[in-house]
Amino acid sequence: MVKNTQIIFSKVPTGLPKVGEHITVQHSDLDINSLKLNQGDILIKTLVLSVDPYMRGRMRDASMKSYSPAFELGKPMNGHGVAVVVKTANDNFKEGDYVYGMIPFAEYTHLPEQWTKVLQVRNEARDDHLPLPHYVGVLGMPGMTAYVGLYKFGQPKEGETIWISAASGAVGQLVGQLAKAEGLRVIGSVGDDKKSEYLLKECGFDGVFNYKTQDMDEQLTRLAPNGIDIYFENVGGKHLEVALAHANNHARFPTCGMISQYNLSHQEPVHNLMNIVIKRIQMCGFIVGDHAQEMGSEFVKRVTQMIKDGKVTYKDDVTNGIEGLPDALIGLFEGKNFGKAVVQVADQ
Amino acid sequence: MVKNTQIIFSKVPTGLPKVGEHITVQHSDLDINSLKLNQGDILIKTLVLSVDPYMRGRMRDASMKSYSPAFELGKPMNGHGVAVVVKTANDNFKEGDYVYGMIPFAEYTHLPEQWTKVLQVRNEARDDHLPLPHYVGVLGMPGMTAYVGLYKFGQPKEGETIWISAASGAVGQLVGQLAKAEGLRVIGSVGDDKKSEYLLKECGFDGVFNYKTQDMDEQLTRLAPNGIDIYFENVGGKHLEVALAHANNHARFPTCGMISQYNLSHQEPVHNLMNIVIKRIQMCGFIVGDHAQEMGSEFVKRVTQMIKDGKVTYKDDVTNGIEGLPDALIGLFEGKNFGKAVVQVADQ
Repeated sequence: MVKNTQIIFSKVPTGLPKVGEHITVQHSDLDINSLKLNQGDILIKTLVLSVDPYMRGRMRDASMKSYSPAFELGKPMNGHGVAVVVKTANDNFKEGDYVYGMIPFAEYTHLPEQWTKVLQVRNEARDDHLPLPHYVGVLGMPGMTAYVGLYKFGQPKEGETIWISAASGAVGQLVGQLAKAEGLRVIGSVGDDKKSEYLLKECGFDGVFNYKTQDMDEQLTRLAPNGIDIYFENVGGKHLEVALAHANNHARFPTCGMISQYNLSHQEPVHNLMNIVIKRIQMCGFIVGDHAQEMGSEFVKRVTQMIKDGKVTYKDDVTNGIEGLPDALIGLFEGKNFGKAVVQVADQ
Repeated sequence: MVKNTQIIFSKVPTGLPKVGEHITVQHSDLDINSLKLNQGDILIKTLVLSVDPYMRGRMRDASMKSYSPAFELGKPMNGHGVAVVVKTANDNFKEGDYVYGMIPFAEYTHLPEQWTKVLQVRNEARDDHLPLPHYVGVLGMPGMTAYVGLYKFGQPKEGETIWISAASGAVGQLVGQLAKAEGLRVIGSVGDDKKSEYLLKECGFDGVFNYKTQDMDEQLTRLAPNGIDIYFENVGGKHLEVALAHANNHARFPTCGMISQYNLSHQEPVHNLMNIVIKRIQMCGFIVGDHAQEMGSEFVKRVTQMIKDGKVTYKDDVTNGIEGLPDALIGLFEGKNFGKAVVQVADQ
């Protein structure tokens, strides 16, 4: 008999979700030895789980359509994670395999065959001796978001200037280091001075400012005196207005999120969209999943090598134990995470 | 001695420009016979002049940078037009040649050699027996805007739905007919019922609504029940909000103007930009001049043939006499033009 804690989606929130109301921690027990698997089923033990801003969008009424499915009320939430196969009745998975993909927010899960189809065996996570959280961060969905956004939609050219919002977050810190490697001037914005210091000292950013304590417009005038050629949009609202004002002609705005807007019932307006015409700006929304086939293996190969060569550093903000998951998730919307927020559910 | 009326930029406006204050009609005389040309100069007689919404952006203080140069205070304004060469001291131009390009708003102009470099000889305008206004409309800059916007940035696919704002205008009416020829469902919006009737009866649009008298959201729900795949953005503001709400995943928004915003000192805000992420919308600002080299000759060839074959119809709203130019220009911002606004300065 093992303890099996699950994180349940218990109520659709308006505004910022609350633990115990919208997200509930539920304890139960599981008898692994006597558990019977149907043909094709597997039992997994969760090792790490990613918490990401887009999950706020899944905490909605299921009748509303969006790019990712709504969480089911009363059921465990789920997200990208790494788990180990504990029992298997499926020829595609051996006991001890590490799997990556959408994993329920639970310590153990009995997965029916249907669900196993969205998992990939990824035993390099077991064998490569890189920190396990990296596989849901710099080498997972957020890392690929950085890669696809910068290369496919940002089209960086040596000597250009990029501004990255939420720059020390899961996506931003990698965007900046990739852009630096391409010869760009890299400017970041963050909401905390210690994040600023990390980006300047450890990630090689050319300039960073704190949007909570400094005037964004003044800081961009100072740090990007020749304007910005790429704005990596993670935030929305006022950040976007400032980016439109400071953009150069033919600027590209890869747009993968607007975290400042997720918990507002009325979105903040943007007033200067005429700049899109005047400056011929390409503002491209994208969802990383659409590009997995096209760029996924190139991304994993290149970024893994850069990490091994010490050319990319990456900060994970690790919460230990699944009970801490709800606070780690909600903390994202208050900028509490320092680096990629990950929950380490078990060591192995 | 001939009369030579000129249209002068006399004061930078805030809000809607006024004739006699910001734009002034100035009469003078010109002695053609005794006029001496330096080597390289030419004297042209203006035949047709285009008035276009973007000209509002040129009526600014010259210290403000933008994609097209500010008009010079106290000097004739200028824009796309067709003129005939009356006298020449330049080997590239013969007497009687028709030239196309940026033409000063004057009946006659003595052009120094430098200026002649932005003119092209276009004698098909003299010899082809198509209406002369077509050369500054459907076969000129607005027509190419339609062509570049639809093909390069709209990427139309058979069976998709396009919504064109300002649909009976210089750009919109051609976009709709090109899109129809590609097998799209074509929806237009206009501000006048007679424009609506023209698009439905003569241009083959599938549906048109009047945004001034009908609810945009309701009309799009009715006319584009499966959502829109391309929004051809000429208007901005509320139109853009509605387009974001009705867009399908992977929609393209070719964006060449936001006429509703040009005379506002504070731009109207847009509240639902999160749709750019959620629906992976590509919102691409463009200026037609950037693509002249790449697509100009293909455009002229294809659209000329479509007109000759009766596959494209195009309505010009012709004002006779240069004195009427200021009102024709200002009328654009009130939607008074019905079709492409053109000023016929002389017949030949």
